[in-house]
Amino acid sequence: MTRATIAILGATSVSGQRLVHLLAGHPWFTVAAVTGPDHLVGKAYGDACRWALAEPMPAYARTLRLREHLGGEDASIVFSALSDSAAASLEPELAAAGHTVVSLSSAHRAEADVPLVLADVNPDHLDLLGEQRKRRGWTGALVTIPNCAVVGPTVVLKPLQDAFGLRRVFLATLQAVTGAGYPGVPALDLLDNVIPYIAGEEEKLESEPRKILGRLSGARVEPAEVRITAHAARVAVTEGHVACLSIECERAAEVGEASRFLASYRPPEEVRGLPSCPGVVLAVRPEADRPQPRRDRGAGSGMTTVVGRVRADPLLDIRCVVLAHNTIRGGAGSALLAAELLWHRRSGESA
Amino acid sequence: MTRATIAILGATSVSGQRLVHLLAGHPWFTVAAVTGPDHLVGKAYGDACRWALAEPMPAYARTLRLREHLGGEDASIVFSALSDSAAASLEPELAAAGHTVVSLSSAHRAEADVPLVLADVNPDHLDLLGEQRKRRGWTGALVTIPNCAVVGPTVVLKPLQDAFGLRRVFLATLQAVTGAGYPGVPALDLLDNVIPYIAGEEEKLESEPRKILGRLSGARVEPAEVRITAHAARVAVTEGHVACLSIECERAAEVGEASRFLASYRPPEEVRGLPSCPGVVLAVRPEADRPQPRRDRGAGSGMTTVVGRVRADPLLDIRCVVLAHNTIRGGAGSALLAAELLWHRRSGESA
Amino acid sequence: MTRATIAILGATSVSGQRLVHLLAGHPWFTVAAVTGPDHLVGKAYGDACRWALAEPMPAYARTLRLREHLGGEDASIVFSALSDSAAASLEPELAAAGHTVVSLSSAHRAEADVPLVLADVNPDHLDLLGEQRKRRGWTGALVTIPNCAVVGPTVVLKPLQDAFGLRRVFLATLQAVTGAGYPGVPALDLLDNVIPYIAGEEEKLESEPRKILGRLSGARVEPAEVRITAHAARVAVTEGHVACLSIECERAAEVGEASRFLASYRPPEEVRGLPSCPGVVLAVRPEADRPQPRRDRGAGSGMTTVVGRVRADPLLDIRCVVLAHNTIRGGAGSALLAAELLWHRRSGESA
Amino acid sequence: MTRATIAILGATSVSGQRLVHLLAGHPWFTVAAVTGPDHLVGKAYGDACRWALAEPMPAYARTLRLREHLGGEDASIVFSALSDSAAASLEPELAAAGHTVVSLSSAHRAEADVPLVLADVNPDHLDLLGEQRKRRGWTGALVTIPNCAVVGPTVVLKPLQDAFGLRRVFLATLQAVTGAGYPGVPALDLLDNVIPYIAGEEEKLESEPRKILGRLSGARVEPAEVRITAHAARVAVTEGHVACLSIECERAAEVGEASRFLASYRPPEEVRGLPSCPGVVLAVRPEADRPQPRRDRGAGSGMTTVVGRVRADPLLDIRCVVLAHNTIRGGAGSALLAAELLWHRRSGESA
Repeated sequence: MTRATIAILGATSVSGQRLVHLLAGHPWFTVAAVTGPDHLVGKAYGDACRWALAEPMPAYARTLRLREHLGGEDASIVFSALSDSAAASLEPELAAAGHTVVSLSSAHRAEADVPLVLADVNPDHLDLLGEQRKRRGWTGALVTIPNCAVVGPTVVLKPLQDAFGLRRVFLATLQAVTGAGYPGVPALDLLDNVIPYIAGEEEKLESEPRKILGRLSGARVEPAEVRITAHAARVAVTEGHVACLSIECERAAEVGEASRFLASYRPPEEVRGLPSCPGVVLAVRPEADRPQPRRDRGAGSGMTTVVGRVRADPLLDIRCVVLAHNTIRGGAGSALLAAELLWHRRSGESA
Repeated sequence: MTRATIAILGATSVSGQRLVHLLAGHPWFTVAAVTGPDHLVGKAYGDACRWALAEPMPAYARTLRLREHLGGEDASIVFSALSDSAAASLEPELAAAGHTVVSLSSAHRAEADVPLVLADVNPDHLDLLGEQRKRRGWTGALVTIPNCAVVGPTVVLKPLQDAFGLRRVFLATLQAVTGAGYPGVPALDLLDNVIPYIAGEEEKLESEPRKILGRLSGARVEPAEVRITAHAARVAVTEGHVACLSIECERAAEVGEASRFLASYRPPEEVRGLPSCPGVVLAVRPEADRPQPRRDRGAGSGMTTVVGRVRADPLLDIRCVVLAHNTIRGGAGSALLAAELLWHRRSGESA
Repeated sequence: MTRATIAILGATSVSGQRLVHLLAGHPWFTVAAVTGPDHLVGKAYGDACRWALAEPMPAYARTLRLREHLGGEDASIVFSALSDSAAASLEPELAAAGHTVVSLSSAHRAEADVPLVLADVNPDHLDLLGEQRKRRGWTGALVTIPNCAVVGPTVVLKPLQDAFGLRRVFLATLQAVTGAGYPGVPALDLLDNVIPYIAGEEEKLESEPRKILGRLSGARVEPAEVRITAHAARVAVTEGHVACLSIECERAAEVGEASRFLASYRPPEEVRGLPSCPGVVLAVRPEADRPQPRRDRGAGSGMTTVVGRVRADPLLDIRCVVLAHNTIRGGAGSALLAAELLWHRRSGESA
Repeated sequence: MTRATIAILGATSVSGQRLVHLLAGHPWFTVAAVTGPDHLVGKAYGDACRWALAEPMPAYARTLRLREHLGGEDASIVFSALSDSAAASLEPELAAAGHTVVSLSSAHRAEADVPLVLADVNPDHLDLLGEQRKRRGWTGALVTIPNCAVVGPTVVLKPLQDAFGLRRVFLATLQAVTGAGYPGVPALDLLDNVIPYIAGEEEKLESEPRKILGRLSGARVEPAEVRITAHAARVAVTEGHVACLSIECERAAEVGEASRFLASYRPPEEVRGLPSCPGVVLAVRPEADRPQPRRDRGAGSGMTTVVGRVRADPLLDIRCVVLAHNTIRGGAGSALLAAELLWHRRSGESA
């Protein structure tokens, strides 16, 4: 495999830091450029970045100079951890200039010709890129990954959709603070407290799974018909979003059968061999009190979604609890997996 | 009003401590006896009790001697904060012996002739006591109050039931650690973590509101027809249970109208004047991010249920977030309010 | 007692909020004016202020309009919870204009003619105000109270100084987040973490007790000769600063004797009757594991300093652990007590 | 290198779990036997153990059966994570029976012929084993490692002792909850709280460094003459003990010079090549607010001690803040390093 040269936009944000972390020692990708906010431009990443992760900053990143912009020559793949407002204008410019942009921001997720992908759930949606190039005249591409709290539930819903069809979902999330970046949530708001609100989050939880689980039909995605009600709360956890789900399927789903479908879920073959794809994409825990953020977010180096408490629901079909590491599986790791799939396909084409 | 002599069973438990706390300076009630576990019997309460509350232990309690049992003469009203297994046998014995027992335990809540009451929601259920005396031949009485996490949601459901009828409810709770007593949950289970399971809790959340909101019909309670799905999680909060609710009513409930019914809810008049009844039983907050445990559990000295984020639900009618102080409104405070109502009625009768 | 009209500068800060809280229902003082930052001026306090305390905002404050400045007529006593930079220029202006300013900021604490007072420790230092008026030509006055983490240790050192003399002190503080205001410390810095540094804090801990414990000599204060080494850390606590002290006295202090002096400490008589003076200024706990923030900060409604673990020190004389509620005893409450003493004296003079 | 067969006593405790974790994939050691408490004997480790670590349980351990005792044949090296009372009798028996016991318990640390070792600080103390064998007639050996909170400060004191000599140390620790095992500290004791007391801890902090830093003289260790005052507190942190130190040296130690000695500290050469010896044994951080538990405990995979805030002390010579991962560097990791050194030496002898 040819190595790809990588740029990270917004590399000092928590999401950017997680990209920096996961790209250390990557077998295919080499980080060549990092950008940051104006007041940090020109500084070494190691000096400029207020590192927020528990894992140490990788050595390679310390001496990278923060830039303001990319030049045309810099990067085969550009990861964007920009704010939504910065992403809105900059990402299309970079795609137009020939970059393959993989974005963690929400700015373009809802656009019809922009794939919203989890490589292990809906890799076929990347076929939208043909339409995207045609319609927009871009030589590059823009791919988005979902909101961090959307990922875990969607990975769980996928095998249930395949097996039973989905009708309605109730979803209550207990979200970690890294999801709000740094400085993010004040300690006074989370010590001995819960904040039962995250701006814009419930809307994303209700709409993004419908696009991801939708059917690619010609040059567009037909959203899945599942309807979702979401409640989002912030809790005193550093990393790992928990979601409680009640699910109604089209065909009655019994607990044992549902558990088996969840436990036997495998991503498409072309994804399984990618460097960031974990051995187990979806782990089913049998214990009464799992998954938990501190004990389960490390599964599969943060890439395994963990589901537990699969049980009957008094009103719908089944209930369960889902956990996904929000900055790995719910962010940088899923961006990386998508980029790996794109790079793998391109290498296949050029071979 | 004649003063009543009070006994507290299980007075060293967290629930017992809260009873001890709330009874300090009570205008009608005087604590005369406290019981505790075998190894503490004979000690002064102030020495024996590992006080778990943030509020200081009241001075009156320090010198009370912990007993093993009550004698027949001790108490007009007995508050029971016993474990379920101890309560199962002891509470009926005390009621048979002529005591009015108000119990926080779950041992007898489901029995047909045992009222499960929130004095400000279903005071009429106390009329079951006639049937109870008749059937059991007791000279005393046994009254129960609900599980701590049931109280907040039920107070919110009551005015909606009155106005619109209730059909289905989804309920996800984020519960405080005092609900598990002391020592209760290990710190290692809640630092940087959530435990998405509380043994037996979801069953109570699904059944107890149906009894409380049920209709007294002759000598029995017809459970309300509302059906409930519950998810219960433990979070790093000391006091104050949060619940996220999605509610389907019999008649379509619109957000503005529902909010008005919530805001204008008043308990029955005989309850409003009781010493432990707060000025506002149910407060509606307009802010996007309320209620919160640390900021709202103190409302009405812990007796006000706070609801916020009343908004439309994409699948059902309305959604909201509810908070109630779990050891006051969800426990000792509601027991006290029930006892006050009983004492008030008895004083009225004897007058 | 005549009532005094009060203004609070910086009323939306955490310190300002605590002043607002403590002044509710005050027997002598009525809040007439509150000021806040530019972008909030003109708004009602209840709408403008992001309330950070666990106790509810008092009703009286909700409708007060935030001003930019005081007019000359507004207030007999001005409490200043301004930032140091704002306080630096504004407080002297107000004192020059005739206001009695009691300041929580550190801007003027070190100035020779500005009293740094705890009313129950060094009320005689208020006599500096004569010199202050003379030297500065002010018709008003400027009084400061110490840094929040200084208060607890100083209250403990006072009776030891009186009994044994003080030579050297080692001091390690574990400080609550309200000390940093709001938004203050990010949750990501305190969840599963400790920050072993607070900018400027150790310098204050090493110098301010020397001034407070110093001897008033004519028109100046001779600093106490005690020398102090301080370590300051921020921990995941909302309110209540803990300090571990090792103390060397001039005359050898034995544990039992020291404990007795601590337990029998009484403030000067004129202070004991002030509305904010607690019944017990310094409480000595006998338990092995006290004081603790959550269990002890409420002592004396937050005004009692709690000391425990008084024991021999292998290198110096004695060791102990001290707790003081940082925003009450360590801030607003001590400011209030100082103001009460000033008002009481003035009323005595005018009577 | 020949592989060694390993047994872990008390393998279900938190310390035992960390041993299980660190021994996964060890290049020299293979775990052959694990023991646990009576009620778990016979069960598979994966089923019996309430795993408390954030890192997943290693696959190799899941199927090991918990035993009650070791047989004579089981293990070249026995790691003991037993309670002190169990260790008191069992460890000498095993050493008498020919096992090399490396113990994390405190039962035998103070005995004159039992080495208390950090392999990178005082490996020469292992020479006590000759005396131990001679005096006790054992064919095996008993080696102990220090209390978890002793390790970080001692690693920092070592190069200062070498360079300047040590006279007096003030030490205040902020300790993580894993140090108390599982269930350990109740959440109600640490949410919004600090417990300023850990039973027996201060005595260990004051005595153990003196033995470790002592001089081996013939068949005994002459304790270092440094005198220590310790304060120990428990804080809401999962892993990573912080210590604040004030240090007086025999020869005046200036900050820059002290920092250089700390930064250039290297363990003896025979230790540097051991599998568990980190590249950097002692890292000096230049930032104002480091080290911190969450951000620094992962340094060197938990084996690097991190020191920061090296600055002048107003009373003694220098002050600093130290962090060591309490269950890795402060426990299992140091036990492993000691065992590696023993095994390395034995292999050298037999070669």
